[in-house]
Amino acid sequence: MIKVALDAMGGDHAPKAIVEGAILAAKESQGKYGIILTGPEGVIKDTLASFGYNGEGMEIFHAPDIVTMEDSPTVALKTKQNSGLVTCVGLQKAGKVQASVSAGNSGAMMAACLMVLGRVGNMPRPAIACDVPSFGRNVTLLDCGANVDEKAPTLVHFGICGSIYAETMLGISNPKVGLLNMGEEEKKGTEVLQEAHQLLKQAPINFVGNVEGRDIMLGEVDVIVTGGYTGNVVLKLMEGFYEYHLKTFGKIDSPQGRKFHEDWDYSNRGGAMLLGLKGTGLITHGRANAKVIKNALDLAYRLANSQVSEKIAAKLSQVA
Amino acid sequence: MIKVALDAMGGDHAPKAIVEGAILAAKESQGKYGIILTGPEGVIKDTLASFGYNGEGMEIFHAPDIVTMEDSPTVALKTKQNSGLVTCVGLQKAGKVQASVSAGNSGAMMAACLMVLGRVGNMPRPAIACDVPSFGRNVTLLDCGANVDEKAPTLVHFGICGSIYAETMLGISNPKVGLLNMGEEEKKGTEVLQEAHQLLKQAPINFVGNVEGRDIMLGEVDVIVTGGYTGNVVLKLMEGFYEYHLKTFGKIDSPQGRKFHEDWDYSNRGGAMLLGLKGTGLITHGRANAKVIKNALDLAYRLANSQVSEKIAAKLSQVA
Repeated sequence: MIKVALDAMGGDHAPKAIVEGAILAAKESQGKYGIILTGPEGVIKDTLASFGYNGEGMEIFHAPDIVTMEDSPTVALKTKQNSGLVTCVGLQKAGKVQASVSAGNSGAMMAACLMVLGRVGNMPRPAIACDVPSFGRNVTLLDCGANVDEKAPTLVHFGICGSIYAETMLGISNPKVGLLNMGEEEKKGTEVLQEAHQLLKQAPINFVGNVEGRDIMLGEVDVIVTGGYTGNVVLKLMEGFYEYHLKTFGKIDSPQGRKFHEDWDYSNRGGAMLLGLKGTGLITHGRANAKVIKNALDLAYRLANSQVSEKIAAKLSQVA
Repeated sequence: MIKVALDAMGGDHAPKAIVEGAILAAKESQGKYGIILTGPEGVIKDTLASFGYNGEGMEIFHAPDIVTMEDSPTVALKTKQNSGLVTCVGLQKAGKVQASVSAGNSGAMMAACLMVLGRVGNMPRPAIACDVPSFGRNVTLLDCGANVDEKAPTLVHFGICGSIYAETMLGISNPKVGLLNMGEEEKKGTEVLQEAHQLLKQAPINFVGNVEGRDIMLGEVDVIVTGGYTGNVVLKLMEGFYEYHLKTFGKIDSPQGRKFHEDWDYSNRGGAMLLGLKGTGLITHGRANAKVIKNALDLAYRLANSQVSEKIAAKLSQVA
């Protein structure tokens, strides 16, 4: 049975929201997958008890160290090996679990996944892939901030990762992959984008050409490739737009409004997937509540169960 | 008296919407500035007549060539010197007008402004600056797509241009300038962003540090600096949001809704300003209607009247 390790101490509302989310997931998944909570055993037991949960479908792995939001990734990795964050990845490396989830220090979680699990392909770091709302469809955007100053072949690897994710997990046959640019013509954009455009045309994916910012919202592609800097700006701008909207209109209680909130509320999504790892890693929102954690655990299980990382590794080994 | 030259043949709805916008501006401005329509004289006269306008406050400069959306900027500049687009800039160089506006081929308009008027500072091209909606304030974003692969000093020049614009035109004293990045810390982002951060700290502006995508919507800065690629993506994403919103909710007829539409409808804004020119150039939306054109003419007049380009030139001459 697939097991998912969850860092019980990561996130603004840890351990309460994290443990509550794990209980939700254990109840709803009805034994489809196992959950291992990593962190200080006493704290986790007390928190489980506070919810009156008997611990069914859940294990605890004692890891007393605490990674804070201020810890640098390297410090966390070196000096806090017995933390919930590092051990949730270490258990995967040891074959005890098949996926790892943390809502804690995202730089440290990225470093743990990269250094402990290792990467596939030639991306300097695994890409952060996020599903974002678009009119009438889902768009998978990557990289949302793991890499900077990417070379063109790295952007091609992003495209392959996104394509395999969309095909495997979202059931989209031959997903349309677009390169985020500042014009439709091949010769638009930075030198790297122009080179990437040519390489993407040769890649074993359904590359449909350049797309623009408007196409994130209203386009016809399934996967959008960009560098980590621009992807991070886009993702956070979209979060900001939703907050702006809530401040302006509150929750709109109409059929369109409910659909809008369903699509835009980040807590309906599991979090940011690290694609290009030898394994399955998920970084969820620091502000994650129990619902986010439950969705993250489900997503991590489905990623591992669908062997997305193995499929990505196989495809990336075919290209430069 | 300040005069503004307007390319009568540029834009999807030219010449009708362009001429109609010029008439609106001439009527509302009541002689505060003059307008010269550039394009084929017969066409312009007929269009003016179709609106029953007697031509008060307006001149026509005959320019029979037509720049299409498909023309490359260099071809347009070389072979279509007698077009409305090129002559509206040429008249400024000759001292006949103080500002130039086109809703036509934006690459050609950029090239005409750059080659005919010339640039100040060390930006490879003038920055495209746009005012964008933000919660409870205005944000001036630049560069929105004129430049690519900027070096760090160019980003500093963007910051200076934006700061002077916000101070002079929006009346903001000591405008807060932020660098769009993927984290608040100085060491975040691409190499160029990290270098620009250090240079911006030394620049003669009120640099408040890095801002993130969310801060475009909900931040506390007046000017946001980024490279042309990311700025273009942000601008078009925001246009896409608004279209998405209209498709989802239509026009929301409440006090908040009317404010939202007022802020987000691009036709309430004049267009994209080219900052860093020896002169005043404005590129308006290709889909511009008469209201957009009127706003663009007013904005061009105010830019020229406030001597924004002269103030930018003076400040840029003080820095590397």
